[in-house]
Amino acid sequence: MEGSRNAPARPGTNLPRIADFNQAVILNAVRHAPEGLSRVELAELTGLSAQSVSNITRRLLDRDLITEAGTLVPAGRGKPRTLLRLHAGGHFAIGVHIDPTVTTVALLDLVGDVVASVRTLPASAASPTRLVGAVTAAAEGLVAATGVDARRVLGLGIAAPGPLDPGAGVVLEPPLLPGWTHVGLRALLHEATGYPVVLHKDAAAAALAELWRGPRGSAFALEDFVFLYLGTGLGAGLVVGGELLSGTTNNAGEIGHLMVAADGPRCNCGQRGCVGAACMPRNLVAEAGDAGLLPRPGTGDREIDDREIDELFTDLCALAADGSAPARRILEASAFRLARGAATVSNLLDVRAVVFGGPIWDRISAVFLPILRDTLLTTTEARQVHPVTALGSSLGADVGAIGAGCLVLEHAFSTRPATLLLGQELEMATLEP
Amino acid sequence: MEGSRNAPARPGTNLPRIADFNQAVILNAVRHAPEGLSRVELAELTGLSAQSVSNITRRLLDRDLITEAGTLVPAGRGKPRTLLRLHAGGHFAIGVHIDPTVTTVALLDLVGDVVASVRTLPASAASPTRLVGAVTAAAEGLVAATGVDARRVLGLGIAAPGPLDPGAGVVLEPPLLPGWTHVGLRALLHEATGYPVVLHKDAAAAALAELWRGPRGSAFALEDFVFLYLGTGLGAGLVVGGELLSGTTNNAGEIGHLMVAADGPRCNCGQRGCVGAACMPRNLVAEAGDAGLLPRPGTGDREIDDREIDELFTDLCALAADGSAPARRILEASAFRLARGAATVSNLLDVRAVVFGGPIWDRISAVFLPILRDTLLTTTEARQVHPVTALGSSLGADVGAIGAGCLVLEHAFSTRPATLLLGQELEMATLEP
Repeated sequence: MEGSRNAPARPGTNLPRIADFNQAVILNAVRHAPEGLSRVELAELTGLSAQSVSNITRRLLDRDLITEAGTLVPAGRGKPRTLLRLHAGGHFAIGVHIDPTVTTVALLDLVGDVVASVRTLPASAASPTRLVGAVTAAAEGLVAATGVDARRVLGLGIAAPGPLDPGAGVVLEPPLLPGWTHVGLRALLHEATGYPVVLHKDAAAAALAELWRGPRGSAFALEDFVFLYLGTGLGAGLVVGGELLSGTTNNAGEIGHLMVAADGPRCNCGQRGCVGAACMPRNLVAEAGDAGLLPRPGTGDREIDDREIDELFTDLCALAADGSAPARRILEASAFRLARGAATVSNLLDVRAVVFGGPIWDRISAVFLPILRDTLLTTTEARQVHPVTALGSSLGADVGAIGAGCLVLEHAFSTRPATLLLGQELEMATLEP
Repeated sequence: MEGSRNAPARPGTNLPRIADFNQAVILNAVRHAPEGLSRVELAELTGLSAQSVSNITRRLLDRDLITEAGTLVPAGRGKPRTLLRLHAGGHFAIGVHIDPTVTTVALLDLVGDVVASVRTLPASAASPTRLVGAVTAAAEGLVAATGVDARRVLGLGIAAPGPLDPGAGVVLEPPLLPGWTHVGLRALLHEATGYPVVLHKDAAAAALAELWRGPRGSAFALEDFVFLYLGTGLGAGLVVGGELLSGTTNNAGEIGHLMVAADGPRCNCGQRGCVGAACMPRNLVAEAGDAGLLPRPGTGDREIDDREIDELFTDLCALAADGSAPARRILEASAFRLARGAATVSNLLDVRAVVFGGPIWDRISAVFLPILRDTLLTTTEARQVHPVTALGSSLGADVGAIGAGCLVLEHAFSTRPATLLLGQELEMATLEP
């Protein structure tokens, strides 16, 4: 139809929605001020009237979402002001990270801190049914061990390797989880645990964890960054304007086949030079084996391989740290390729920082970070306008599980303006179970 | 500070903002229905009350933004309903596209259709001061020739090659505009024309034009896509959730150095295999010259080069269309490389479509489109979840200028929920000049 316009009409907004939104705005402001905020400061920060702030904080106190925590006496004249903080122990979330090497289950409080966590069998060793059983037992065990009231658990988040169909809660055919084909993990875990369940990709969850918890060494509010998640494979989590960019079907961040070199190990896509293959412990360990630095990994079944490779990779990193020049060169070559990939993504999205993390990060950061930092500062296109910084995640190997829990908290705290629009119901209504 | 949270508090919202937002919601709904909408339909579409719709449409009629256009008589019983449409001729915008080969100035009406346009001297031939003079004369000429009341022109948008500092309205040092260094184009054009001026990158403007005008052959509302802009260089415009993704400093979309091949012509970054170099008419023409298909381009000054290369490129495309196998192979090799780049970006952002356009698109689409279409359907990571479609832009060589005008309209119509937030003032308040 000539002249037709494609984008659909957008829905309007109305008063009840505004009340919900403003409540989330207040909750979010309190969340970002761990030292506490007075009602007067909240009104200044948010632009809301004193009366609105007073009504909203009353409701949040009644629901155990915030708590009164001390008194601020202003310098000079002025009444003492009561400080409000998140009530960290008022509500909880469970985060589950499914990785081929190990599955992690963490219990987070309302500020996103880990109250307790447990590691369980590797996902690739388990049928989906066995995994669901193990995760359910772990989650129930954590809740029981910490004495948390299960009614205060807002929900359970899962971080899993892509591709996913997160709308349907289905793990499709992740190359990293052989034998997993169209597994309806969200429904299975909801049935087994009774909690509302949300599913997202591991790298996206890790990016959300950084957004909530923030990397060390960052001088600015990190609202635009890419999280490069280094584990059995490589994935990207994208954050733009303080929000996760998830794509049409929540599958954004598939970065593995980004080309960064003219050669390199053969990727499972059949090509050479893919950034995922250049950073994969399996390939780096094989290269070290070929160079006689390490025993060659066995070629047994996948399950044993994943663990063996992880151990050999630890040995490789230890060799490099102990001064082995050839071991160091293998890691450096990988770092330069990852750096080119990071610069490419940074150019495309115009972010201020690339954050690196995931299960293998702590082992490689000493070699990788200087190379990544230098490449991003000197080769990105926007360097005339702003520097692009390479940062290491401070959340360690649990970043996926923390992120999975943050998926749940995100629903509770969201101030995404889109939640204002009529008809945009959340999948999980978590704050009033 | 251990435990500090990085993201800033978000501002709240209040009633006057809601009124503005809902007005934009109605305006936007009307915009997307060129056949017209009744007030009853508007209430259904937007979720707003009949009373709100009535008040808002009254204001929009008074301001000449919408107009009554005929009557719908419902089937069966029911009162006849007045249809409302955008008042296309009620307001206008000027779009300016600065390209090394040619500068285009277009006058758009309120629905984004081109009322009149003019092409002027190439940007690379002009000093910034001469260009500003030529653009000002062209804009004034268009307004005079069409008899448009200059007070009804909402503003002037500029689309220029990156990198830019659009916040400051400054063109930095675009590799495609040699001699242009930190030119404050926004201020210069505002001073010369008196209009509010907005500046953005060419590829971003082109993406906005597609978002407003929509590609042909698209069966769905295109709210998530990448626009690959093929001109003297290659740029990407990113649209996510119906909004332009501009990045931290509006420099998103720098895609030129994305690696797509192990070899290829040397790029200005010093590397080989960059997608920008693989699609650049300058390089394709040189390759055809080396193969004896075309005379070799001269090596005179840049200004003559740009025009000469454009003409030689037209000859190369004509040779391929006339059945020259070697000419066709040169274009096909370029198409395969572009396709790999398009698949990479699509994997990263999880979009439903990649739209191709820009000044050289109409000459290459016959060879390129089948290759692009096939690659995106068969190699993207999300193909298990949804197909990724390659689409040709229907806006032709003027897509940059149309997009530049749409930058202005975007301000007028924006229903981006972020405009609801207190303190987020628009750079241009255009609807009530």
